[in-house]
Amino acid sequence: MNLRLKNIRKRLEERDLDCLILTNPANISYLVGFNSRDSYFLVSKKKNIYFTDFRYLEEARHRLKGNAALSKIDGSVFELLAEACSALKARRIGFEENVLSFAQYKKIRKALGKKARLVPAVGIVEDLRRIKDKQELQDMRKAIRITIRALKFIKAFIKPGRTELEIVAELERFIRRQGATGAAFDIIVASGLNSSYPHHASGGRKIRKNEPVLVDIGVDNNGYKSDLTRVFFLGKINVLAQKISEIVLEAQKRAIYSIKAGIRASEVDAASRKYIASAGFGKFFGHSLGHGVGLEVHEKPRLSSKDNSVLMPGEVFTIEPAIYLPAKFGIRIEDMVLVTNKGCEVLSGAINQ
Amino acid sequence: MNLRLKNIRKRLEERDLDCLILTNPANISYLVGFNSRDSYFLVSKKKNIYFTDFRYLEEARHRLKGNAALSKIDGSVFELLAEACSALKARRIGFEENVLSFAQYKKIRKALGKKARLVPAVGIVEDLRRIKDKQELQDMRKAIRITIRALKFIKAFIKPGRTELEIVAELERFIRRQGATGAAFDIIVASGLNSSYPHHASGGRKIRKNEPVLVDIGVDNNGYKSDLTRVFFLGKINVLAQKISEIVLEAQKRAIYSIKAGIRASEVDAASRKYIASAGFGKFFGHSLGHGVGLEVHEKPRLSSKDNSVLMPGEVFTIEPAIYLPAKFGIRIEDMVLVTNKGCEVLSGAINQ
Repeated sequence: MNLRLKNIRKRLEERDLDCLILTNPANISYLVGFNSRDSYFLVSKKKNIYFTDFRYLEEARHRLKGNAALSKIDGSVFELLAEACSALKARRIGFEENVLSFAQYKKIRKALGKKARLVPAVGIVEDLRRIKDKQELQDMRKAIRITIRALKFIKAFIKPGRTELEIVAELERFIRRQGATGAAFDIIVASGLNSSYPHHASGGRKIRKNEPVLVDIGVDNNGYKSDLTRVFFLGKINVLAQKISEIVLEAQKRAIYSIKAGIRASEVDAASRKYIASAGFGKFFGHSLGHGVGLEVHEKPRLSSKDNSVLMPGEVFTIEPAIYLPAKFGIRIEDMVLVTNKGCEVLSGAINQ
Repeated sequence: MNLRLKNIRKRLEERDLDCLILTNPANISYLVGFNSRDSYFLVSKKKNIYFTDFRYLEEARHRLKGNAALSKIDGSVFELLAEACSALKARRIGFEENVLSFAQYKKIRKALGKKARLVPAVGIVEDLRRIKDKQELQDMRKAIRITIRALKFIKAFIKPGRTELEIVAELERFIRRQGATGAAFDIIVASGLNSSYPHHASGGRKIRKNEPVLVDIGVDNNGYKSDLTRVFFLGKINVLAQKISEIVLEAQKRAIYSIKAGIRASEVDAASRKYIASAGFGKFFGHSLGHGVGLEVHEKPRLSSKDNSVLMPGEVFTIEPAIYLPAKFGIRIEDMVLVTNKGCEVLSGAINQ
């Protein structure tokens, strides 16, 4: 915990910031091992303060780590923040412009008065979070293990006549009974035509014979997430679906084999995308290839044609090529990988099985 | 749907706004009967446009109501918004400053150029949403019915040795099997000491004999939410817990009997708060008495000492007085009421049973 705060302070110095107001829950969790709704965390060279209200004060008192002082919000948190900044004699104050609403910004701006300057400073904690340490990898491996068990379990449960929401219900219960804190996001069960929507909201549709059932599930284990997708076929798989599945799987392999420390995120995306395009389905793969996973389901890096950042050992992300045929069906295969010095480890261990 | 949009347009005229950019998902759902992540909805006197990306385009095509045009985000949504505003010759453009991040604000601001002005316009849709119509009440009644069934069901399941998360798992599965879309928020199961935290995050703690188990559960039915809390006692209830329970129940009754169209929200809050204070536990009831419920679990009105708005027939909110004794336990009783001309209807029908 202390190493992380030390790192943040170094970044503050580099950017000539006196302190940083954090509002992104995942960033706060990363630094103090705890978070509650509507909380703020102020990091400075001298002192760190966690601001929370009545509802979470007792729990924060017991669980807060990282040598942070606790301040009770009882009235305006913006006044409290301004007072703390003033006591620290802070002039340049970083804030997370992608999380703070315009209304919150205005209130902090007003409370600070003219002496201090608010400086957009997004990504300081996010960049540190890219490289997972041992404990984080352990938490993520457990999340992934539970997810794989859930997918194996649900395979036997999926039968014609069951609704999408029934399947979601069984999955949620299963992962909790396995020790997960809960689902990392709304589990997607998309059957038949619904699988052609990349982010279908599961509903009451009953599953029929001989159709694909796409299951996209993530688990939250101790704050750390997983995110995997499989498509199950009930009964016969038709020729087109078989062909599409093979193309998507091959596209995933090509991406995975391209990964190693030092390669650009966009190059990995291209490895899958070019293959799908060469097979004639390029325009049916409309989203990026993958995304970092950790305390958030979507975090850095982004595996897309636009992200030219260089992949580093210790980064964990999804590889999820897909082909969605409108008015027909969709196939997405999603696994999670860890970048290593030599290449990568498929954490969800699916490729070579 | 058309009536709602007509109402919005009237408000735009009153505020001299040419159009309104909506980003609050509940507000968008209210107007177009559908919503997807990262979407924007532009309402103007002439035309309404829903902006979404590849992932949700197909689903939007099928489900979008309210006579809205569909625009695919493929690049910068801020440029698209600016183009649409320019085509509408909009000069004064309302936006939701409590939802839009500072970064989004800056991007829209830049894309619009100097001709148009961005005007904070929060609450236009929220104010309309306060009064529930027939269909909305039907959806909410169903959500509440499922929640009550879940509470009855779980009473038999809660036994010493079960963990909080096991109970959450059973509840989630139960409500989905009953037809709910899912839980409206992370279900709270807080046992023993944990019940003294107003918003405990359920964990692996095993329930013991003779202790209270607080269950705070909400259901999402077709987008509409419920929110109820009960405290169960396993085995004997000690004298103090019995006393506190009676005080909280009486405080709830006093609030409920005070409700009628025309009374101020703060007066209802005071009816409970004064009673708890007179019993000597005022400082252990730190949150407001209740909150509106609808497409969001927390919406207008707020039943607090600070909300002087007048209650209107058709409004639905929670009444949830509580006493939290640090290092001991907490008791919260939460029901949902509908304001009527004569008084109110307890939708969760608990008071008179």
